[in-house]
Amino acid sequence: MSQPDTARLLIACDDQPGIVAAVAGVLAEHGANIISLDQHSTDVGRFFQRTVIQLAGLSAARPALEAAIGEVAERFGMEWSLHDVAKRKRVAIFVSKYDHCLMELLWRTQRGQLDIDITMVISNHPDLAESVRTFGVPFVHIPSADKAAMEQRQLELLQGNVDLVVLARYMQILTDDFIVKVGAPVINIHHSFLPAFIGANPYARAKERGVKLIGATAHYATADLDEGPIIEQDVTRASHSDSAADLQSRGADVERQVLARAVQWHAEDRVIVHGRSTVIL
Amino acid sequence: MSQPDTARLLIACDDQPGIVAAVAGVLAEHGANIISLDQHSTDVGRFFQRTVIQLAGLSAARPALEAAIGEVAERFGMEWSLHDVAKRKRVAIFVSKYDHCLMELLWRTQRGQLDIDITMVISNHPDLAESVRTFGVPFVHIPSADKAAMEQRQLELLQGNVDLVVLARYMQILTDDFIVKVGAPVINIHHSFLPAFIGANPYARAKERGVKLIGATAHYATADLDEGPIIEQDVTRASHSDSAADLQSRGADVERQVLARAVQWHAEDRVIVHGRSTVIL
Amino acid sequence: MSQPDTARLLIACDDQPGIVAAVAGVLAEHGANIISLDQHSTDVGRFFQRTVIQLAGLSAARPALEAAIGEVAERFGMEWSLHDVAKRKRVAIFVSKYDHCLMELLWRTQRGQLDIDITMVISNHPDLAESVRTFGVPFVHIPSADKAAMEQRQLELLQGNVDLVVLARYMQILTDDFIVKVGAPVINIHHSFLPAFIGANPYARAKERGVKLIGATAHYATADLDEGPIIEQDVTRASHSDSAADLQSRGADVERQVLARAVQWHAEDRVIVHGRSTVIL
Amino acid sequence: MSQPDTARLLIACDDQPGIVAAVAGVLAEHGANIISLDQHSTDVGRFFQRTVIQLAGLSAARPALEAAIGEVAERFGMEWSLHDVAKRKRVAIFVSKYDHCLMELLWRTQRGQLDIDITMVISNHPDLAESVRTFGVPFVHIPSADKAAMEQRQLELLQGNVDLVVLARYMQILTDDFIVKVGAPVINIHHSFLPAFIGANPYARAKERGVKLIGATAHYATADLDEGPIIEQDVTRASHSDSAADLQSRGADVERQVLARAVQWHAEDRVIVHGRSTVIL
Repeated sequence: MSQPDTARLLIACDDQPGIVAAVAGVLAEHGANIISLDQHSTDVGRFFQRTVIQLAGLSAARPALEAAIGEVAERFGMEWSLHDVAKRKRVAIFVSKYDHCLMELLWRTQRGQLDIDITMVISNHPDLAESVRTFGVPFVHIPSADKAAMEQRQLELLQGNVDLVVLARYMQILTDDFIVKVGAPVINIHHSFLPAFIGANPYARAKERGVKLIGATAHYATADLDEGPIIEQDVTRASHSDSAADLQSRGADVERQVLARAVQWHAEDRVIVHGRSTVIL
Repeated sequence: MSQPDTARLLIACDDQPGIVAAVAGVLAEHGANIISLDQHSTDVGRFFQRTVIQLAGLSAARPALEAAIGEVAERFGMEWSLHDVAKRKRVAIFVSKYDHCLMELLWRTQRGQLDIDITMVISNHPDLAESVRTFGVPFVHIPSADKAAMEQRQLELLQGNVDLVVLARYMQILTDDFIVKVGAPVINIHHSFLPAFIGANPYARAKERGVKLIGATAHYATADLDEGPIIEQDVTRASHSDSAADLQSRGADVERQVLARAVQWHAEDRVIVHGRSTVIL
Repeated sequence: MSQPDTARLLIACDDQPGIVAAVAGVLAEHGANIISLDQHSTDVGRFFQRTVIQLAGLSAARPALEAAIGEVAERFGMEWSLHDVAKRKRVAIFVSKYDHCLMELLWRTQRGQLDIDITMVISNHPDLAESVRTFGVPFVHIPSADKAAMEQRQLELLQGNVDLVVLARYMQILTDDFIVKVGAPVINIHHSFLPAFIGANPYARAKERGVKLIGATAHYATADLDEGPIIEQDVTRASHSDSAADLQSRGADVERQVLARAVQWHAEDRVIVHGRSTVIL
Repeated sequence: MSQPDTARLLIACDDQPGIVAAVAGVLAEHGANIISLDQHSTDVGRFFQRTVIQLAGLSAARPALEAAIGEVAERFGMEWSLHDVAKRKRVAIFVSKYDHCLMELLWRTQRGQLDIDITMVISNHPDLAESVRTFGVPFVHIPSADKAAMEQRQLELLQGNVDLVVLARYMQILTDDFIVKVGAPVINIHHSFLPAFIGANPYARAKERGVKLIGATAHYATADLDEGPIIEQDVTRASHSDSAADLQSRGADVERQVLARAVQWHAEDRVIVHGRSTVIL
């Protein structure tokens, strides 16, 4: 996965003629070769583009390139960011007692399937310490008895140290204040059904209701929304012969796949938030 | 699909030792060969069984067989019904302006893929009259201006004449009174999403929310429930590049498949209602 | 679906720096706004791009735009084509006795879900004449007794008159000579399984082999390959309780969806052939 | 998952009237309560049944029950077996260097999702020793330099000690002699595509061919067949933007799910071999 001299340029702006030409022009002038380019314009006139470029001597060339992009960005009113592919995102995973999502992320990362650095796992329970440390990843147990103190300690560990927080079946609700202060995007996974069962014992209630599909949704956690922009969703079939425990077990299989895909796409700078939705480029 | 001398026996009772043996015994005594047998016991001790039997001279033998089954049923406290496979269910389809679910049912029936008799199509709009009559099926336009009068006319057509009513994207809400009086099960199809969007313009709102899956749910309509027991559900993938119109078009494809499967299972006496859920045998 | 002043530009060339910038530049110079742009570079250094543009007064502006694109194309060694979105592709459908794929295409086209003009249906059997003519589409029966004569008559009808030929479960093998002479791409649908069953009675053999999935593949028919570039594939689950007839019926449902998607993507100029494979942009 | 006094009765015989009644009768006579019963009759007149029973004091009651079932079995010409649910199957896993299928089985077993005892892992490479021993499972490295000697050593370890052998991406071909002598069923997982790519570098060839789906098949390995009865199959979507490495990674995800399901069904005595196919009850 090592890709030196490769970067990803993300831009978002109001749709208008000449954007693609202007960006491609500035890249060509600086000798950056376009490896891939994906863009999307919404019905309401918003434009998004993800461009993967290769540029010999990227580190040295970067300041001049950024200055030139900055000029184009100003002209078109763009938000933009440039991500060095060689610099993997630093990820903290929050977990409680369920281990399936955590293990999937640790294991995929170890195998080289997921291009992130898991720098710490934080839990309100001590149970999974050994499983985590086997992977050479620090495990920090922060009890939830005093919630304000817990979040304070979490923030001390996280601020400036991570590029992404993943809630891998973390059974505590984050305060809006925490989400604002942590300074990194937060991805959450939650079980979901048709119809939706909010509250306690969702699997027992899904069983009672006889659902034929069970699913999972990975989304960004945001301060002001019950449920932030959706990154990925999937389902698996269920039937009357599945017990509530079977539903939970099958649900766990979907959760770990959906969360792994969402984290991978985020790690590859493919996800752009657009209002309450996401564009996956 | 013609299967003379074949019948389906459905039973439901509290779980207890000896049910399968007693039913199999009475069938064997009357010379009925078991073609297939599916059963299910719930966690809460309810037992369901669907048995397909073959019995030479079924019509003549039926009264004696029913009397014998009746005795066993009394002993075990069973609800039961015996369905002659050769006697296809008479189905009325309700429709408004969307034709995709209606056409799928008409077309599958014409091809022999769906073993029902569609005896009439009732609509609150005249638009689809010609499409329906092409299939040799009567189309009755009953305007919705006076709702009580509309339901009255519908009941006159339906009572005693149909074994099943299918709401194939019928955009009127049935009154509880209608559902009680119609004297036949009612199957409804509705679009469904994660999260669920209730009310107007669900596709526009699903688009705004960036869902990654769109789905459909077929369920029985019941007098006292917002949404009755679920028969079948399915989903298809969506992405940011799908417009609200695309979502509607893909949703329509899922709806017609889900509804066709639900009607087929009902027609084959595979669906047993259990509280708010179904068992599909 | 009416989109005046909209066109799709497809290009393919060896990958090299500056392509996107050069194309975007020439489009911007001529006042063409980029609606969407998708591109793909292969591992072996081939570059593909699909650009949807909007240009006021497209018809009048087209010659100048084409000349300018032609200059860029020559510089980069591009193959390219420019398709007016308002000009729907003229499609001939070949069919034998199975009607499911044919009906799906006719019906989607009638509903406006498929943006093509079905200008004729050609069959070696007379059976489906009435079904086709109901849609206002000409049906031509050309018997297969004398194969050379049959192909000769087919070519007379097709040459210059169609932009696409769809084999919707057409049970005759086209000669390489026909494929070369017809002068339009040919899309075929064929049942395919895991593992593949080539030859007679595929469903009986899939049943004998106990497959758990049945599928369908839509591909271009080519003169020199057993099976040309794959456009789309899908599967549905099967089980031991499905008879060979059930497998055939479920297979038919997959076939019509897979073929409809393949034809739609082709109609939208999304499919670019690359060696033995396709790129879907 | 502990279920004392529970057993699974599998029977197979030619279809004939009275089977279900006779079996249910003998079970009722011995006080065995039927928990679930699934049966299937094939088109060619073969009958299969899986019955889960509960019987207080199973160990003590078993000889008399077996004698009584034996009598019924003789009358109907049945093959049959009775499996104590509390006695988990002893499983040996064969592996080479790929760890994804192995880890999935170890991990599901550890979590209690898979009701087997993994008693040893045998590999022709030493690489995965530590990963396996972390789970408390013995790892035995038997090099493949001398194939006859390797199989001899494997048989010494396996004969009489295991109820199932799972080839979890084991890259050696078993001899027919080994399969006959090992005295336990062997389940294999292999990557399979649409169309199938047999031989070297399947992912590179799937990429070259532009497949839109990649899949996996779990099947029994048999002495006289290239590929034995299929237990489970599944697929995932692929596109032109997936590299050969991406296909391999996605293929690995499907393989581990398909193999886990196949092993689970086998462990639950759900799989009955019927000629070249399986019935899953």
